[in-house]
Parts: sequence; structure tokens; C-alpha cells
Amino acid sequence: MDELALASYLDRSKDRILASLVEWLRIPSVSADPERAPEVRAAAEMCAGFAREAGMHGVELLEAGGPGGPPVVYCEWLGAGPDAPTVLVYGHTDVQPTDPLDEWESPPFEPLVKDSVLSARGASDDKGQVIMQIEAARGLLAERGGLPVNLKMLFEAEEEVGSPHFEQLLEAERERLSADVVVVSDTTMEAPEIPTTTIGMRGLVAFDVVVRTAPADLHSGIWGGTVPNAALVAARMACALHDEHRRVTLPGFYDDVAEPSKEEAASLAAVPFDEEAFRRTAGVAYLEGEEGRTPRQRTGTRPTAELVGFHAGYGGPGMKTIVPATANFKVALRLVPDQRPDKIAEAFRRWATEQAPAGVEISLTQFGGVAPMVTPSGHPALRCLSRAMEKVWGKEPLFERSGGSGPEEALARVLGAPVISLGIALPGDRFHAPNETLSLEQLWRGVLAAGELLLELGTLNLAKARDEGPATGKGTQ
Amino acid sequence: MDELALASYLDRSKDRILASLVEWLRIPSVSADPERAPEVRAAAEMCAGFAREAGMHGVELLEAGGPGGPPVVYCEWLGAGPDAPTVLVYGHTDVQPTDPLDEWESPPFEPLVKDSVLSARGASDDKGQVIMQIEAARGLLAERGGLPVNLKMLFEAEEEVGSPHFEQLLEAERERLSADVVVVSDTTMEAPEIPTTTIGMRGLVAFDVVVRTAPADLHSGIWGGTVPNAALVAARMACALHDEHRRVTLPGFYDDVAEPSKEEAASLAAVPFDEEAFRRTAGVAYLEGEEGRTPRQRTGTRPTAELVGFHAGYGGPGMKTIVPATANFKVALRLVPDQRPDKIAEAFRRWATEQAPAGVEISLTQFGGVAPMVTPSGHPALRCLSRAMEKVWGKEPLFERSGGSGPEEALARVLGAPVISLGIALPGDRFHAPNETLSLEQLWRGVLAAGELLLELGTLNLAKARDEGPATGKGTQ
Repeated sequence: MDELALASYLDRSKDRILASLVEWLRIPSVSADPERAPEVRAAAEMCAGFAREAGMHGVELLEAGGPGGPPVVYCEWLGAGPDAPTVLVYGHTDVQPTDPLDEWESPPFEPLVKDSVLSARGASDDKGQVIMQIEAARGLLAERGGLPVNLKMLFEAEEEVGSPHFEQLLEAERERLSADVVVVSDTTMEAPEIPTTTIGMRGLVAFDVVVRTAPADLHSGIWGGTVPNAALVAARMACALHDEHRRVTLPGFYDDVAEPSKEEAASLAAVPFDEEAFRRTAGVAYLEGEEGRTPRQRTGTRPTAELVGFHAGYGGPGMKTIVPATANFKVALRLVPDQRPDKIAEAFRRWATEQAPAGVEISLTQFGGVAPMVTPSGHPALRCLSRAMEKVWGKEPLFERSGGSGPEEALARVLGAPVISLGIALPGDRFHAPNETLSLEQLWRGVLAAGELLLELGTLNLAKARDEGPATGKGTQ
Repeated sequence: MDELALASYLDRSKDRILASLVEWLRIPSVSADPERAPEVRAAAEMCAGFAREAGMHGVELLEAGGPGGPPVVYCEWLGAGPDAPTVLVYGHTDVQPTDPLDEWESPPFEPLVKDSVLSARGASDDKGQVIMQIEAARGLLAERGGLPVNLKMLFEAEEEVGSPHFEQLLEAERERLSADVVVVSDTTMEAPEIPTTTIGMRGLVAFDVVVRTAPADLHSGIWGGTVPNAALVAARMACALHDEHRRVTLPGFYDDVAEPSKEEAASLAAVPFDEEAFRRTAGVAYLEGEEGRTPRQRTGTRPTAELVGFHAGYGGPGMKTIVPATANFKVALRLVPDQRPDKIAEAFRRWATEQAPAGVEISLTQFGGVAPMVTPSGHPALRCLSRAMEKVWGKEPLFERSGGSGPEEALARVLGAPVISLGIALPGDRFHAPNETLSLEQLWRGVLAAGELLLELGTLNLAKARDEGPATGKGTQ
């Protein structure tokens, strides 16, 4: 690979990079644990130090959500000038909790390298991928004295708890963070011999529904069998959310669902998918869902309605002879382009109101309202990524759609920029589970690819890229 | 009413009886509150004192469920000889909790008499009705020097918490408690001008069902829409328990349901029933249940299946993006003669197993197994009660079936004796609610009726009564 821009830089830097990463991984920056706030800060400070050493400018810790908020590393290098593209790189410095601790083969915060695999909490999610991006910038700055793009980097400290303050930060710093392309390094690829890139996330609208049939629980002996039962009313509503073909029954739910373009569909279908292995990993006896769709479609390009929780009546030991007066259920609707959260939320509200028998009180609380996002498969920035990855892995990446919903959507929406993902972790790296790992071969390839990507993005025709619009569903058909 | 046996006794005893009852009502014998155990015992001891003063023999406090168990007052008067009928009177000395306390117009344990109505917790449920029975015995023993029946009295101290140790006590003391007729005084009558008596209770079999679809909750983004959702599987099962006519779908559920005899049906139907008032009291917007049946039938002579609780997945604030792996629901089946709890339980087990999709784990826990009971409307003991009540209230009582399940069933089953109910509380006496009351006029009539009943039962043709069998469903058709 000696034609790659960072090949020789990497050869002489591997030991140092690995040592820095290992030092960083020793810090238990578990954002879910309030007692780890100092470590979360220390991890951000060390990351800021890496950025400074890399030659980035304006390194500082922003405070997400206002003064005292979690530390978000920001840095920039704006030497390419106002006519050059601006790239924002996103990652995170916090890590998942380590439970169950006794399933770790080596302590989660004592990084261990064995057979070119680094084991530690945060190795691949996401410290390894953050350092990969910083080193690519450092290498190019060192080797070439500059970059062909203006580069901004943003590494948050709350991703593992759902980025509660991230959108607020984006809004507050919209000017400073403005970019033509966002590059996220926080995902996996299928395999080293099957490079993939995540081009879409599903949207999310969720509802909490409270059903009330009476002022108080009623004695089942005296009233049972002749008064409405809130638990049963709610169960009927929950069941009515899907028809016998397992399609969601909200009127208009599928109206705006855009099928992937032929190019994208072909790419999505080319990623190997072992249905039996998928089923086994989930630990379920069978797969079910929208008829006429494959499991991959159901979790990627199709919208779903999931019953997330249901609570009504007595749940303690033994039995209580009541007719429950209230019931509560929660539904999460995962959306795909071009569904709009506000329109779907309105459809859900109308549906719930109509489903409830007359006289039964319904109260609805909406949570979230995240739009789906997909980067059009023909987007010029995505072509830059494809070329960069092909140079390193020998093949253009296939496309994947994530079934989840992440900060990518807020980045795309608030900044109005397409989001592309250079994710080099592997499915076996055990994100969020014990014995998280990172393949050093993938890390080194990632540094090379991140460098190539910046060079490719330097060639981006900004006018054309802007025509394609930001990363929304608008380009999928 | 001076032809009544206890008329003159009552006239000269009212002040003393009322004073005793008021003193007794000052004791907060709340069995649901473990800190009130001393008061529960004090109330039983005072009751034992009343029995001693009445001239009852062998007064003692039995310990329900073994040494240290709740105190059950037992006493007897066996002077009528082995050929005379033996009557067991049942009541309870414990009371309901008083919450919400601020809704009481006068303190619950400071009895208040106003306009011939006594207000206090326990006034009608059940201390007033217990003292009524003791005074009837006292009066007859004082006026006549003896009774025409052998009399046993049993007043338990755990009725308000579901009589957890009562059946064990009945089994342990079966010999001592043996009787030809059981008289319960713990119910209401429709109105002073519409005397009624409860002749049946429904049976009860309940199940806790746990549904498991996966070893652990799954991320709804990654797996949602394509793996089975335990909450939805359970909701479908809960909904499938009734058909579109709101009939219970367990195979064979209605096979053994006996319609009331013509005589009973006519009597049941003659008790006034204001459907609108019933609905308003429940606080529900509409009534629903088994089609083709009236609300009174649905809660009295028809079996029901009630969804008592349903718990699955996330129930906290906000939202969690999971596919629940487990769900739990509880079902209470109320049974009527001649349904058998074991047969219905077996039908439920088979039904639940068949309803669950293949590969979904189901585990079932059964609670209870109480048979329904009804005293045949033509039973000689019931005729004695009718005559006694007619003498006092001027009309034979109409029959009622209670929708609940109480210690009556255990009394009938373990002792093999018919159960009849002399209950003089009124529907407006607010059992279990704030501002419980007792009409003194009903109390005095109750003492007279209890006396007449003992005299009537003295004439019981034992051979004929035994032919009618105990209080089960066998006589209803």
C-alpha cells in the first residue's frame, strides 16, 4: 500500500499510536455512572491533548447543554481557505459500563494486546476510531504541512447515554460547526474482506399511552366481567397496532416510505446476511415481522412499531382480585425515509384516540421525534468515501442501513450536511458487551483510509454536493 | 313485634348492647397493619368476654395456622343434646384499614351515634353483626335457660386480609367445629323494605403467566420488527381469552355452568337493580361483558375471566428502545356452580400452552382453587332463615348471589354443611370505605332475627337437611 499518503507516517508511528490509545483506554470514562464524571472529563482532556499534538488549532472543551455540562472536545484546522470544503469529524470519548464484570477475560480498563487484537472497554467503541481520525489529520499535517479541506473535529462524552445534550450543543454552536460533510467514525463494517459503510439510520417517534377506565381499581368479584378493564382495553389497542400481515395499521403509515434506489438496494442485498445466525444471536425461536420483507429489510429500510412496555394492574407476588382502572403502554415507531416524525406522530395520536372505546380516557405523551436519515447512495461525498476505502481494503464498500437512531440524524439536520461513516470496527468486536476488542490491522487501515478520505474530500465539487442536499431521505428514490 | 322471642329482652338491653359495641369499636383491629397485632388481639379478647357474659361455654382463642397465629374466638353451647341440630355461626373481629383518613367525617375509631346511625370503622363489617349473634344467644339463654340447637361460634381475625390461615384452622379443628348448618353474618341486604340473603359465592382460580421470547431484552433498532416481542405475544394471549361476544374462549369453560333453578332465578331477578346507578358507582363510562346476559347475571351467576395485571418491558419515565424478552400477566377466573376449579385450571393450562407460538416459553403458576358455592334455594335451612327474616322484616328475603369468593366456601366444603347468611348491613353502610355506618334499627332487627333463626333451626329435620347435601352447586338445577 505504499501509494497511500500516510503509509510511511503510519509505519513509523504505530508504536506511539498504540501506546497513546492504551493509555487512553486505562481511563474508565463510563458516562452512565455519575461517579465517573471525573474520568469522563479526564478522557476528554487526554483527547484534547492528542488533538493539540496533532497540530489541530483552537482545541477546547465545550460544555454540552450549558456551563458545567459534559466536556465535548472541539478542534479545527481551517487553513484550506474559504473555497475549500469543510469536513466535520464526529466521535465520542465516553464508554459503555462494564457489567457483567465477571464475564471479562481480562480487566476492562487494563488494555491487553494479543495476536494483534487489543482488548479493552472502548477499544473499538469509540476511542480507537477517534484516535484513528486524529492520527490521520496529524499524519497529513506532518507529511504535507496542511490539508486540502478545512477540518473540524467534535468528540462528545455522552453518546453512550443517548447524547441528551448533543443537539442543544449543535444548535448553540451551529456557526462554528458548519460543514459541507460530516464524517462519523463510530460504526462497524461487515468484515475486512467485505468493507461496508452505514449510510442510513432510522428515525424514531415514541409514545407513552395511558388508558383509564375508572377512577380506581375495582373489586373483580363485584364488578368483574361487566365493567371495562383498562388492561384489556390497552392490550386490544396494542394488538390492533399490527394487522394479520404484521403491517402497522396507523392510517397513512407507509404512504411516504421510499424504497431504496436500485443501486442502493443492490448494494444492501450484497452484504452477506445469515438469517439463522441472526436468529441464534437474538436467542429467539423464530423470526416474524412485516410479510413479504426479509429480516434485513425489516430492520433497515422498513418502518416498524414496537411495543416497548406494558404495565397495568397487579404485578406483585400472588394474586389480587381487581379490575385494573389504568394501563400504560409504550410504543416506539422506527421511521425510514421519507416518513416525517410529525406526520407519523399525528397519525398515532389520531389512531389511539379512535381505538379507545368511547368514554375511556386516553392520555398520550410523545418522546423523541427523530427523522430518519439516509445519505443518497450517489452522493459525491459518499463516492469520496468509496474511493478512499477501496484504496485501503481493495473493494468499494457495500452500503448498510442501521436499524437504530443516533446522533447522525441531528448532525445531518442541524448542520444541513451529508453524513458519511468510516467505521472500521468489526461485528465481532463486542460493542457494549464484555471483552470488547479492536483489530489493530483494522485500526491501521482506518488511519490510512481516514487520510485518503480527507484527500478525496478535498476534490469535492461543493456546488454539486450542495445540490444533492443534506442527508435526508430526499435522495433515495 | 312482641310475638318475637327476644322482643322484651331487646327492649331492656339496647343501651347495654350499644355501649358494648361502641367500646369494642374503639379498638382499631386493623388486620392489614402488622403494627396493629396487639389491637387485633385485644378485639378478639373483648369479643371472647362478650361470649362469656352471654353464657357461652368453652370460650377460647384458637390460633389460626398454628401457635402464635391470629386469635380466633371460639365458643359453644352444646346443651341441646346429640339429636338436636348443631349450628355454627361465623363472623370476624378484624376491620379494614381506614385510608383515606381525611375523607372520614368523624374519626373512624371514635364511634358516633346520630339519627340512629352508628358511624365507625367495623360498625357493620363485622363487629355489629357479630355482637348481634352473641346477643341473640345471650337473650335466648337468659329468657329460656337454653337453646333448641347446639350452638358454636367462630369469629376470625384475618377476614379482611383474605383469611389466609382460616382453612387450615377449619381442617385442624374439623371435629370440634362440625355442624349441620353454618350461619354467616357478614353481608348486606338490599334494603329494610327489601330483605335479601346471599346464597352463593363464586369460585376462584387464578393464574400468573410468564411469557419468554428471548434470553434478554433486545435493542429495538437492531432487532425490532423481526423478532417476537414478548409483550405483544402476551397481549395477543390476553385478548384471545374472550371472543367477540365477550365469552371466555377456554374450551369447555361453560360446559358445567348450571343455570339457577326457576325459583332462584325469579328471586334473583326480583331484587331491584339500577344499572345506571351501578355504572355510576363504578365510575365507568359503559358496561360490557358476556353478550345476552345482564350485568347482574355477569357478576352473579355467570363465570368470568378477568385480566388482573399485565407487566412487560420498560415502565419507567421516558422511553427505552427495547424489544421486551419477557411478559407477565395474571388472570382471575371466577367460577359458578357446577364448574370445578381443577377442571377449569386444566383447561387454562392447555389453552395457554396452545396459544403460545411454538418456541415461546410459557410458565404458569396457579393461585387459589376455590370452588363456587350456592345453597340450594329449596334447602330446609334456607327456609328456616326465610321464616325468621319474614317474622322480623315482614317479607321473605329474596336471594342474591355474591360475585366474590369468601370463607363461606371453605366453611361449606370443609365442614360439609350448608351455609346461610343473615346479613343485616345495608348497601349504603360503606363496607371498606370511609364513613362506615350501621343502622341501629337494622341491628335491633338483626338480634331479633338471629334469635328467631336459632328457634327455627331447632325444628330442622336433620335427615332431610342432610339429603340436600352441603352448599355446593349440586342443588341448583
